[in-house]
Amino acid sequence: MTIELLQPEDITEQLQDQLTELYQQLNSEIKQLSLKTIFEAPATIDVVCCMEGDLLIGMAMMANYKVVSGYKGMVEDVVVSELHRGKGIGRKLMEKLLEQSEKRKLNDVLLFSGHHRTAAISLYKSLGFNLKSSGLYVKKLNSAQT
Amino acid sequence: MTIELLQPEDITEQLQDQLTELYQQLNSEIKQLSLKTIFEAPATIDVVCCMEGDLLIGMAMMANYKVVSGYKGMVEDVVVSELHRGKGIGRKLMEKLLEQSEKRKLNDVLLFSGHHRTAAISLYKSLGFNLKSSGLYVKKLNSAQT
Repeated sequence: MTIELLQPEDITEQLQDQLTELYQQLNSEIKQLSLKTIFEAPATIDVVCCMEGDLLIGMAMMANYKVVSGYKGMVEDVVVSELHRGKGIGRKLMEKLLEQSEKRKLNDVLLFSGHHRTAAISLYKSLGFNLKSSGLYVKKLNSAQT
Repeated sequence: MTIELLQPEDITEQLQDQLTELYQQLNSEIKQLSLKTIFEAPATIDVVCCMEGDLLIGMAMMANYKVVSGYKGMVEDVVVSELHRGKGIGRKLMEKLLEQSEKRKLNDVLLFSGHHRTAAISLYKSLGFNLKSSGLYVKKLNSAQT
């Protein structure tokens, strides 16, 4: 099993297909963006994959941005294949992203997680994340790209 | 009073100084990034300013990113000068960002707000934002750029 930081040139059709399928475990209703699309902008995204041979069994990504309050990384789309949970893969994916966040000298790494995801939350806490007393507000747009 | 979408070429020393001072009303402890720095990457950020003549009286920004789950905008660093609150400037700033989010065809606009910020929260709700049942987790890094 390897934990890899994905480069744009690593994207094959096979990997994209696997990722599409894996991501559906996290959210089956959403229209996914392709890896090609999310890498199009200059390196503002870190994508980490967990491979077992040719098989994608987990992934996580961090969108990096900068605003007046600092250099930030937003962790999104963390998912481990149902068949491979409880093996510490989520932790390894997050550790790789945190390694990137240090290389990028970010000030803050952010993520949000449903209050019911107790396993994920205890993982995040053990990695040094703290719950903020802020609510997350989302506005869905009809104008969305498809 | 005007609400303007800032372009990199609009950044003057005077505006930067005003912005530094204004932002301190939101957070006086943080090491701020300059407007020049946050515009350096290709247009992944929308910065909206409210000017009264030459005077900056409010600002808000939205970092745009894309991950598998979609095109997203994260609203950050919304601040209105203490002397100009209660005039609907926060709303105008947010409306301008939402206009941008439609132009950019984002799927979701995100923001987080302290539970005690009742005025801000009712503004966000009136603009179509909904509170998600997710906690925000933050890890502060020592490696931060200064």
